Amino acid sequence: MKTDADSHLGGAAADDDPREQSSGINEIILNTQGGEDMTKPEAKRSGVAAVNVAGKCATAAEQVNNGLADPDCPGQSVPSKAKVMKQTSKESLQRRNTECEVYDDGTNTFFWRAHTLTVLFILTCALVYVTLLEETPQDTAYNTKRGIIASILVFLCFGVTQAKDGPFTRPHPAYWRFWLCVSVVYELFLIFILFQTVHDGRHFMKYIDPKLGVPLPERGYGGNCLIYDPGNTTDPFHNIWDKMDGFVPAHFLGWYIKTLVIRDWWMCMIISVMFEFLEYSLEHQLPNFSECWWDHWIMDVLVCNGLGIYCGMKTLAWLSMKPYQWQGLWNIPTYKGKIKRIAFQFTPYSWVKFEWKPASNLRRWLTVLGIIFVFLLAELNTFYLKFVLWMPPEHYLVLLRLVFFVNVGGVAMREIYDFIGDPKFHKKLGQQAWLVVAITVTEFLIVVKYDPNTIMLPIPFFIMQCWFLGILLIVTWTLWRFFIRDITLRYKETRRRKQEVPADWDRPVGNGSTAAPSGRSKLNGSSETVRQRKS
Amino acid sequence: MKTDADSHLGGAAADDDPREQSSGINEIILNTQGGEDMTKPEAKRSGVAAVNVAGKCATAAEQVNNGLADPDCPGQSVPSKAKVMKQTSKESLQRRNTECEVYDDGTNTFFWRAHTLTVLFILTCALVYVTLLEETPQDTAYNTKRGIIASILVFLCFGVTQAKDGPFTRPHPAYWRFWLCVSVVYELFLIFILFQTVHDGRHFMKYIDPKLGVPLPERGYGGNCLIYDPGNTTDPFHNIWDKMDGFVPAHFLGWYIKTLVIRDWWMCMIISVMFEFLEYSLEHQLPNFSECWWDHWIMDVLVCNGLGIYCGMKTLAWLSMKPYQWQGLWNIPTYKGKIKRIAFQFTPYSWVKFEWKPASNLRRWLTVLGIIFVFLLAELNTFYLKFVLWMPPEHYLVLLRLVFFVNVGGVAMREIYDFIGDPKFHKKLGQQAWLVVAITVTEFLIVVKYDPNTIMLPIPFFIMQCWFLGILLIVTWTLWRFFIRDITLRYKETRRRKQEVPADWDRPVGNGSTAAPSGRSKLNGSSETVRQRKS
Repeated sequence: MKTDADSHLGGAAADDDPREQSSGINEIILNTQGGEDMTKPEAKRSGVAAVNVAGKCATAAEQVNNGLADPDCPGQSVPSKAKVMKQTSKESLQRRNTECEVYDDGTNTFFWRAHTLTVLFILTCALVYVTLLEETPQDTAYNTKRGIIASILVFLCFGVTQAKDGPFTRPHPAYWRFWLCVSVVYELFLIFILFQTVHDGRHFMKYIDPKLGVPLPERGYGGNCLIYDPGNTTDPFHNIWDKMDGFVPAHFLGWYIKTLVIRDWWMCMIISVMFEFLEYSLEHQLPNFSECWWDHWIMDVLVCNGLGIYCGMKTLAWLSMKPYQWQGLWNIPTYKGKIKRIAFQFTPYSWVKFEWKPASNLRRWLTVLGIIFVFLLAELNTFYLKFVLWMPPEHYLVLLRLVFFVNVGGVAMREIYDFIGDPKFHKKLGQQAWLVVAITVTEFLIVVKYDPNTIMLPIPFFIMQCWFLGILLIVTWTLWRFFIRDITLRYKETRRRKQEVPADWDRPVGNGSTAAPSGRSKLNGSSETVRQRKS
Repeated sequence: MKTDADSHLGGAAADDDPREQSSGINEIILNTQGGEDMTKPEAKRSGVAAVNVAGKCATAAEQVNNGLADPDCPGQSVPSKAKVMKQTSKESLQRRNTECEVYDDGTNTFFWRAHTLTVLFILTCALVYVTLLEETPQDTAYNTKRGIIASILVFLCFGVTQAKDGPFTRPHPAYWRFWLCVSVVYELFLIFILFQTVHDGRHFMKYIDPKLGVPLPERGYGGNCLIYDPGNTTDPFHNIWDKMDGFVPAHFLGWYIKTLVIRDWWMCMIISVMFEFLEYSLEHQLPNFSECWWDHWIMDVLVCNGLGIYCGMKTLAWLSMKPYQWQGLWNIPTYKGKIKRIAFQFTPYSWVKFEWKPASNLRRWLTVLGIIFVFLLAELNTFYLKFVLWMPPEHYLVLLRLVFFVNVGGVAMREIYDFIGDPKFHKKLGQQAWLVVAITVTEFLIVVKYDPNTIMLPIPFFIMQCWFLGILLIVTWTLWRFFIRDITLRYKETRRRKQEVPADWDRPVGNGSTAAPSGRSKLNGSSETVRQRKS
């Protein structure tokens, strides 16, 4: 009985203590260095930092006791302290590591607590009510639909409470878990659609909205391209006013958000221009890609997208400069301050400035190419999917899909950035990025399966030539930048070395202290040494 | 360019270094203390321990730079070291914290690497093949079935690669992620069935196996209960031999596994005996609960279950005593050693001896009661679900459900044990435990909805009396143990204190150094102080 009470009290003491410390540490975190990498782990770190510091150092102390000295934690062998720490830390560490707990602003109020049991209880009550107290209708189709919706809701209940957290925490991790679950549901829906016949798939949409499942009317977008139309006496600029529809603010807003997602001026511009090229190339397939030249280049690229990207970059600059100081809501004295704090809950916890550096190594280069490719494919899917599934452009599902992509795209891009930023090759690709790629691929497969004729319409010879030239340029540059130039530089470097210090010849080229890397990584490693030496 | 190369190289160096250390540390982890709590975080800790030690101490060093001294990491302010660490640790820490990486045996071979991109690529290829190169059949029902199966497979692909890891790592974390995903699918299937009419639900089983969906033949189990039947001259013991069917080894094996899951002699015995009581109480509802008295008590409880529990406890003792030394497969010189290492991959990484201690506080007591309740409910569901869904007992789905429960039950029990072991109340209930409870509840709701008449058959008055008495005893004991006894002890304690040191009166009753706990936790805290003082 004693040991139980002991360990229990010991555990409680070990827990209460760091909480006091952490809330103290947590109150002011200033990010004055602008683009400093303060990411989500920071959120956890600041919340549990003091705990971990204690815990880990005690672990080090244990290692000392086991005869394994650790050079990075000096002064750890204070014997009496280490002894006590060993007891409490081991227990508290393993408990804490099992789950990721979110405090965010250092407070542990109802808002931040996990509600696993509450959700389970409410879910049970709802199921009991619906299934036992309500009369089940005799309509099989209705019941099937209801069963599927109920399954999705239960899945969301489970996922929002229990799914793995992503890189974002604001306004609440549950918000991002929700979108993760939505992407799973959407992907499974797409897979289901993909396995139906074209006729069944289109008519399946009737179950979602009875108005769907009917062929779309033809609509042209090109038409009269005169900026100044002398034939129309009342308003010679009527062609321009005609284009000024709801798509102008939509384009602007879309590119504003895309800039926040990509966080890079150059990549945004490339994607924006590339998409107009794609519209030119594919206007023989989808009529709504055919626009006037000034609509393409002036209104879309320059005015709408350009302005969106400009505003996005301004916002990015503000986000990476603004001080990230998160005070617990209950510690703010004034009422106005509390309101402001609540509003700021919807801004990011911290900000990572993306530096894609596509030319720094082959992996980054290929990833950036891949991102641009998937991004453009997802954009094209928006139009082609509407076309093959007979969705009118103004349908709410089209808008929902865009809202969905805005939310998951941001997480996915951040996960990809983290993935290529990691020096170790074997790290996991983030779950949301994985799903976004899978969704884009599935959407494209649906398009190909549902309307192979449109997709296979032969591309005009001139456009083919342009694309061929573009791809050739990229391949050539890639070969030169990452293979030929590297080999040349390396050859020169080794010859120079050989001449300078012939005795050092049999040492490996890379950093001598670490194990010699092999294969491609060896090549990269050495090229980096070269670059480092150059600068 | 320089900073990029710098950070890249710096990062690589910081990563390679600890790997070397960790594999050294990792080679021998001896768990000689028997019931020592060496859990899964240990698995991670040993793998990444050295890294974290470095990282966390550097974090502490940062805090020192920010003017926040940390007493738990002495000697951290060695300035030159701290400066360097600050650079590398911050980057490596946040990268590492985003994902949980598994090394298990310290090696990072293909087996342990994450295969997110590989799985995504294979999935894409499979989808391209199936949907574009295969001809889609015109049969809507077949396509629907195929679409649902494909959705489930894609979900498993995603889940097995990306789902949150649970407490178990052996033989591979992906194994447990697989079962987690299976439980999600099973729960969603149950929800769907729950929302159908009784007729539709039973006939829906035909989609899984066309032989299902037909009423079961009646079967009695009681019959002649004479152990020695003088009427039968050829074999007077024929009644015993009749009972010796496939259920005898099934009972034994079942209880062997259940003991490994529950890891407590008393709880196993209580559940085993309680189930026989339940069979007595419910034999008027389900005829296959009616058995002879000696079948209940001698063959089931004593022979099959008892032997199973005994063997389980022996295995548990071995598992908690055996040394947990995990050497990387490639570091083992002999061929025989390698084979043995591979075989041992299917034993747990480490072992946690469960000490449920139901009487130590109210929360543990209620949890243990809850576990017993859910466990018995799940056992009853096995029989009732077969009955209401017209599943013959020998059907493979019945067996699959048991295999499923064995796998997820073990994880769930461990998660519940961790949950109640944690001194903080707000910790998340593990995902698998959450699902197992939800599944058990949903199964029970299906039973109630599909056959309310059987469930509502009035229980005989004598049996009702027994149950009423039992519940009364439990409630009384609970009230006495956790409320009346506590208050009495507390009153005595405070009176004693008052007499001894009247000056100390206005100090809080609990541990003076921590903040005074409030509400029920205050009561528990002080009662623990009392108990500690007593022993």
